[in-house]
Amino acid sequence: MVSHENDAYRIEQDFLGEKPIPIDAYYGIHTLRAVENFSISNRRVNLHLIGAIVTVKKAAAISHQKLGNLSSPIATAIVKACDEILNGSYSEEFIVDAYQGGAGTSTHMNVNEVITNRALEILGYNKGDYHQLHPLHHVNLSQSTNDVYPTALRIAAISLLRPLSEAFAELQDSLQIKENEYQHAIKLGRTQLMDALPMMVGQGFGAYAQAIARDRWRLYKVEERLRQINIGGTAIGTGMNASLKYIFTITDTLQDITSLGLARSEFPMDITQNMDVFVEVSGLLKSAATNLFKISSDLRLLNSGPKGGLGEITLPPVQVGSSIMSGKVNPVMSEMVSQMAMKIMANDQAITLAAMNGQLELNAFTPLIAEALLESLEMMTKAILLFKEKCLEDIIINEDICKKNLSASCAIATALLHHIGHHHASELVKKAQQEKKDIATVLRESHILPEDAVKRILDPYEITKPGIPGI
Amino acid sequence: MVSHENDAYRIEQDFLGEKPIPIDAYYGIHTLRAVENFSISNRRVNLHLIGAIVTVKKAAAISHQKLGNLSSPIATAIVKACDEILNGSYSEEFIVDAYQGGAGTSTHMNVNEVITNRALEILGYNKGDYHQLHPLHHVNLSQSTNDVYPTALRIAAISLLRPLSEAFAELQDSLQIKENEYQHAIKLGRTQLMDALPMMVGQGFGAYAQAIARDRWRLYKVEERLRQINIGGTAIGTGMNASLKYIFTITDTLQDITSLGLARSEFPMDITQNMDVFVEVSGLLKSAATNLFKISSDLRLLNSGPKGGLGEITLPPVQVGSSIMSGKVNPVMSEMVSQMAMKIMANDQAITLAAMNGQLELNAFTPLIAEALLESLEMMTKAILLFKEKCLEDIIINEDICKKNLSASCAIATALLHHIGHHHASELVKKAQQEKKDIATVLRESHILPEDAVKRILDPYEITKPGIPGI
Amino acid sequence: MVSHENDAYRIEQDFLGEKPIPIDAYYGIHTLRAVENFSISNRRVNLHLIGAIVTVKKAAAISHQKLGNLSSPIATAIVKACDEILNGSYSEEFIVDAYQGGAGTSTHMNVNEVITNRALEILGYNKGDYHQLHPLHHVNLSQSTNDVYPTALRIAAISLLRPLSEAFAELQDSLQIKENEYQHAIKLGRTQLMDALPMMVGQGFGAYAQAIARDRWRLYKVEERLRQINIGGTAIGTGMNASLKYIFTITDTLQDITSLGLARSEFPMDITQNMDVFVEVSGLLKSAATNLFKISSDLRLLNSGPKGGLGEITLPPVQVGSSIMSGKVNPVMSEMVSQMAMKIMANDQAITLAAMNGQLELNAFTPLIAEALLESLEMMTKAILLFKEKCLEDIIINEDICKKNLSASCAIATALLHHIGHHHASELVKKAQQEKKDIATVLRESHILPEDAVKRILDPYEITKPGIPGI
Amino acid sequence: MVSHENDAYRIEQDFLGEKPIPIDAYYGIHTLRAVENFSISNRRVNLHLIGAIVTVKKAAAISHQKLGNLSSPIATAIVKACDEILNGSYSEEFIVDAYQGGAGTSTHMNVNEVITNRALEILGYNKGDYHQLHPLHHVNLSQSTNDVYPTALRIAAISLLRPLSEAFAELQDSLQIKENEYQHAIKLGRTQLMDALPMMVGQGFGAYAQAIARDRWRLYKVEERLRQINIGGTAIGTGMNASLKYIFTITDTLQDITSLGLARSEFPMDITQNMDVFVEVSGLLKSAATNLFKISSDLRLLNSGPKGGLGEITLPPVQVGSSIMSGKVNPVMSEMVSQMAMKIMANDQAITLAAMNGQLELNAFTPLIAEALLESLEMMTKAILLFKEKCLEDIIINEDICKKNLSASCAIATALLHHIGHHHASELVKKAQQEKKDIATVLRESHILPEDAVKRILDPYEITKPGIPGI
Repeated sequence: MVSHENDAYRIEQDFLGEKPIPIDAYYGIHTLRAVENFSISNRRVNLHLIGAIVTVKKAAAISHQKLGNLSSPIATAIVKACDEILNGSYSEEFIVDAYQGGAGTSTHMNVNEVITNRALEILGYNKGDYHQLHPLHHVNLSQSTNDVYPTALRIAAISLLRPLSEAFAELQDSLQIKENEYQHAIKLGRTQLMDALPMMVGQGFGAYAQAIARDRWRLYKVEERLRQINIGGTAIGTGMNASLKYIFTITDTLQDITSLGLARSEFPMDITQNMDVFVEVSGLLKSAATNLFKISSDLRLLNSGPKGGLGEITLPPVQVGSSIMSGKVNPVMSEMVSQMAMKIMANDQAITLAAMNGQLELNAFTPLIAEALLESLEMMTKAILLFKEKCLEDIIINEDICKKNLSASCAIATALLHHIGHHHASELVKKAQQEKKDIATVLRESHILPEDAVKRILDPYEITKPGIPGI
Repeated sequence: MVSHENDAYRIEQDFLGEKPIPIDAYYGIHTLRAVENFSISNRRVNLHLIGAIVTVKKAAAISHQKLGNLSSPIATAIVKACDEILNGSYSEEFIVDAYQGGAGTSTHMNVNEVITNRALEILGYNKGDYHQLHPLHHVNLSQSTNDVYPTALRIAAISLLRPLSEAFAELQDSLQIKENEYQHAIKLGRTQLMDALPMMVGQGFGAYAQAIARDRWRLYKVEERLRQINIGGTAIGTGMNASLKYIFTITDTLQDITSLGLARSEFPMDITQNMDVFVEVSGLLKSAATNLFKISSDLRLLNSGPKGGLGEITLPPVQVGSSIMSGKVNPVMSEMVSQMAMKIMANDQAITLAAMNGQLELNAFTPLIAEALLESLEMMTKAILLFKEKCLEDIIINEDICKKNLSASCAIATALLHHIGHHHASELVKKAQQEKKDIATVLRESHILPEDAVKRILDPYEITKPGIPGI
Repeated sequence: MVSHENDAYRIEQDFLGEKPIPIDAYYGIHTLRAVENFSISNRRVNLHLIGAIVTVKKAAAISHQKLGNLSSPIATAIVKACDEILNGSYSEEFIVDAYQGGAGTSTHMNVNEVITNRALEILGYNKGDYHQLHPLHHVNLSQSTNDVYPTALRIAAISLLRPLSEAFAELQDSLQIKENEYQHAIKLGRTQLMDALPMMVGQGFGAYAQAIARDRWRLYKVEERLRQINIGGTAIGTGMNASLKYIFTITDTLQDITSLGLARSEFPMDITQNMDVFVEVSGLLKSAATNLFKISSDLRLLNSGPKGGLGEITLPPVQVGSSIMSGKVNPVMSEMVSQMAMKIMANDQAITLAAMNGQLELNAFTPLIAEALLESLEMMTKAILLFKEKCLEDIIINEDICKKNLSASCAIATALLHHIGHHHASELVKKAQQEKKDIATVLRESHILPEDAVKRILDPYEITKPGIPGI
Repeated sequence: MVSHENDAYRIEQDFLGEKPIPIDAYYGIHTLRAVENFSISNRRVNLHLIGAIVTVKKAAAISHQKLGNLSSPIATAIVKACDEILNGSYSEEFIVDAYQGGAGTSTHMNVNEVITNRALEILGYNKGDYHQLHPLHHVNLSQSTNDVYPTALRIAAISLLRPLSEAFAELQDSLQIKENEYQHAIKLGRTQLMDALPMMVGQGFGAYAQAIARDRWRLYKVEERLRQINIGGTAIGTGMNASLKYIFTITDTLQDITSLGLARSEFPMDITQNMDVFVEVSGLLKSAATNLFKISSDLRLLNSGPKGGLGEITLPPVQVGSSIMSGKVNPVMSEMVSQMAMKIMANDQAITLAAMNGQLELNAFTPLIAEALLESLEMMTKAILLFKEKCLEDIIINEDICKKNLSASCAIATALLHHIGHHHASELVKKAQQEKKDIATVLRESHILPEDAVKRILDPYEITKPGIPGI
């Protein structure tokens, strides 16, 4: 909790009784009760969510002012308080635990109270003088946690989804630069970790780029489902205590303030209780996480060594790797990405569990959904950008090792299939392995094919393209 | 394994050695080795996947015939064998364990062997006479497990996705019929399981219908990503041993045979190694599962009783509920749906784990992905249709209980907010609960509002629509 | 469903109405309704569970005979019918879908009906003649699904847990044989896939053996928690309709029949509703699965190549690896184990979800728990035994490659730490890598240490034991 | 990152180059690089882990002093620095991101650097004067991240496991107090949410207490597996650079300092690479989480209402429930527990994924394991204690509603089974439901049993104990 300069308190009350509140605190009695009830993690509510709730509050005040439901001075003070918070002030006043019970009411009331007390100050009153300006009667007018919170969560999610989508675009670009750069560098392809067929180094990066392109596209497309908001639905989506005029006005106002293309849900009761959209978004993050895990694992594999591993690439060193082994450098950026991917999968588990356990007209576990989803979005964005900047862009391809690994293998024997059949080709591979020779040598020794055919068929560069080698 | 009529065997060989094969078996040595290696479950490969692989084989034979790579008699025999299998014959010959190692090669070879031996019979040869017609040289010409299997999995997935999407459409219809039927039946809405505000019974079904509509739409849209196929990419996606002519022809042929709008991937190496599309599809199934779990849980809750629960609805009895408690009827169809939803989530776990653990040019764990995904698709379709037919369509709403629960509650106190403020409204609720009276009574006793206002404001039907009650 | 030889039917009824039952079917009306309601998978109930339920039924009949609650002829016929089923007969009569709703009542009634009808035959009556012998009044006397099913599930789980524990013991033995066999073969240890310190090949297998020993011990110990049974608790654990005499007798009888050390729970209501023990067992399977996944992944990594990978071991070939690449052999047994491990994790997800969603006096989702848990137990046992037999026992260590990888690396530079400090050691590593020399060479060139010290300190065999090298 | 009083810097270097470090920072160059590389979450490393690493460092210094490997002034300064940190100082110097790559090396180096610089100050030197006292040569002497980190994680886990075990004990006590308090209060038991048999309210709490007792016992027992430590194994478990004398001394010293019963692993290579013990512990937390989820869900269900739900209990109000609905109180403490349980399940997912993906001699993802496991342990402890204090202890049982729900139901019809058979009992239930009468009434009207039998058999208090009612 925030420490306060002195021990002075003001008394606040709700229908359960009274509580002393530190006199310089902007939060109030509901917040304090929530802190006492829910301090189970060391984590406070995500500030992106706080910001989005404040944005909704601001839009409500503007709307009510327009419609004559709030007086100008009061509305103006609320809007000013909101703007100050949105500009970064008072962030230490949002002290409720992220894993609170109560469907988000405590986060919501924390915001209502901080706005109210700051607005009171702006109006020249004391904090806590709720007769002048009330967290519920004014700041929360025509609103309920159950429409404010899901609306704000969608706004916060979209605002984090866009930079993530951008990050994927940068990652894709970065991979495609490598694709082009190494389109003529040949290497051994491996299936099930076993020597398979020749390929270009660039093709490998190209395959990653394709997968990342899909991720980017999916995240771009899913935004449209997040744009539906239930503001105005109030407690259960029926809109009680919210006039139609207000509903239309606040929706328009939110569109203006956020520029996010938000749209009023035609069935707000649906969005109030059903959380499938967040499961969908998280599912796409998980899908992207499988790609990122694979790519980062592949890079660690190809980078393994430097002597006792594949060694085909070298990831740039970014820190000393060991507290005991001299000169050791580890693929820490790839490990970070792999680990982040696993964390996203764990968050998906939290989101799925929370979403499935909604009951009737509400889902009580939206705070868990919010915390996990916003964390996933932020963490993935940051990890991708660091991965790109500190790892991908400076990968070195060890072309000599790539070639060595390829030419040592029997990978190109498959090129013979059309010419000598499966049985003979397998026999040659067996012979090559037993006699520790390469395929070209045992083929020549077998005198099955004339020399020019051998050369033509076993040209590894030809093998990396569609077609029957040698034809 | 299939039991055989007599003990006669034929000898087959591969480069590891020889094996006796039951003389009337259509499968061959690779299948037998796979059965010996992988019998860990009692489950064989999903027949939808077998069918899709056979479809690819048929398309390959037709294409090679067109291009002159296979003689007419051989191609015709292969096609005929494929058609027989697709018509349901020889299903007992596909005996490999669903959880096989080897990236699907064993399932693929099982298909190659059965087609080959049936085609040999059609041509008048003995089973096993692979000099005439070979599982690899002919049936597998220009193909690899690594392009055939992912292509077939996508075909199988689409062919199961469409009926699932249809099932969601039927479910949505069914819910909307209830929405209309009960648009004038009033009931108590509940948030966090506590008495909240009045609503229409129909609105509840409408909220479910909206969620299901999203599920349907998502599954409809995701198909386009499954339509990309990597056939012709062969072992690692480079297309070695597959001519461009063949690649175009087999893609066209598959389009014709399946009518599924399949399209050649422009980067087959991507699809060969990256499994994110299956994670995406499974993630959407999981998203739908959260909706289905919530809906079925809600129905069980509303149906609880008949006396000691909410009792607001009665689910149709479909079987005797207890082996000991007389006359007990349980919500078994809803339980089945809840349970299916949890199973889909478990399958999603399998698919995610398998997809993330691909390495370099291949994912070795596609058999786990295939088994889990196809199972999820089939199971969800069947469960939804049974749920609709045997549960949803015949739900009875107990309107009297709905009204009784509503009128006993203080739900409508919120309607007073605008008129008497939060503090007074809360006091009335406290008083009503303490004195066991209803809100209208304590309001009248308080003489705060005139009688006509009381009536107008507390009209529960008005409260289910947007707006300030009584204004 | 079972197909029947003719179209003759008998009519059965329950309180929902009548149904025609194929005249030669041993199952009855409840089973048929359940099949109609729940056919969502192609999977029937696990026969180990069926067997365990039959065992409970047999114990109940014996107990009731002793206590005079069932006549000798009836009890004898029931016991005989049970024994026939336990000996493998009538397995095709258990036709209910594994993913049924209804907390297991349908599986339970399927068993009650098959036993009844077979007992009726034994007594010389017609199937369906329930006036003589009734599925509920006789076969189910003093029982409820809610005590029979959890009791049977525990019996089935223990009976599959023991062979699994045995399989782990065999796996441990097999690993320790390799540990001993290769205690003097030196190789490069790797951390984060990067060259680290020298170690003995045997030590690697020893580390695996230690982990497996823990798994074995855990599974051995957890059995005691499964031994608590709630038989006699009937519907909700209070024991209604079950006399104390009966409860004690059936517990003793079950102990005798099964020899499993079963004990009556002192609080059967607990076991009836709380499924945490199955989550615990599945959690241990998951823990074991992480070990098996790691071991099998490590083996695939060490086996990678044969030319373009680490190549330090060779896994025995058990089948041809590719339908296109000649001579390719894949690590399919390790892949199977990895895949099985992921499937166990998915089943753990199902079990956790089902267990957490029990409500009040019962968990309605025990069928999902049963299906997933028994599948995991069986599958893991079979996979381990096959893995051991077809993979572990015949692993070949390529000692020359092990040595080559070690000596190429700078791993032994750490041995210099004590003698020349971190900074100098790191400089030597950098120099060795830049000049493509080995550590001994650059050390000698540096003249920091005398020759005998170089030899003594850099002896790789010394480095694999605790202590400061060279001292 | 910590903000610093002035802009002065000192220059530090490692083998990658130089970096300016804020002159008053206790951390050094490795920490700074790590912050630059891994800032993906807003979360720093768990201070319990930091503390445990510091404890290991202290034990190492003491041991080396005893063995003469470190001079007394240096060792004393290190120990003093450690003690200061353990007493809460310098916590803001541990600035590395919790989700760092690199197997914990960055956290470890952060600790090494802070201890070193504080010890330098104690010795009268400047921070950064590593020639006097070096993070690696002195503070890390004979140590590696790979033995320090797992050892510390085990110490941290045990130190959080014990209070959790205590919390479970308190929870169990609290439940058993309710069990005793309400052993004579009768209520309706429900299976599958449907009216089942009568039971005592106390029995319900007893069933919960039993489950919690198992959780407590499991967590108590699992500690022994955490007590094995690999300190002295250094980089890969072989003990290179750690003399046997040192290994024995540091183990003894750690035992003394921590009083945790720690024991040297006989096979440190095992513990260095295998993380199954953390999966085991997390699996037990997950098992406990299923119990806590069920209990908290049950309480929410029984508390539902107050009018339109079951209403059999009233959870104590701890905060105002709604920002719009007057007088609403929600079961927020139960919701918090449910939500915490789901978060523990998500963390289990992270731990499992990280553990399975270890490779060869190390698991690179221990930071994810540490973060998730320690968070789960702390969060569960806090949530349980708050749940007990602010919810369980003050639950009110509404005995009148309990009785009303029971007597309205047909639950007691099962008591008639022995006397009138299944068929007749079912008919009476059907009649009672149709005619809206209770079972006793329709039974009396049916004249099947004499009045005294009716009374005796239908006595609900008798029905809550084992035995045939009325006999």
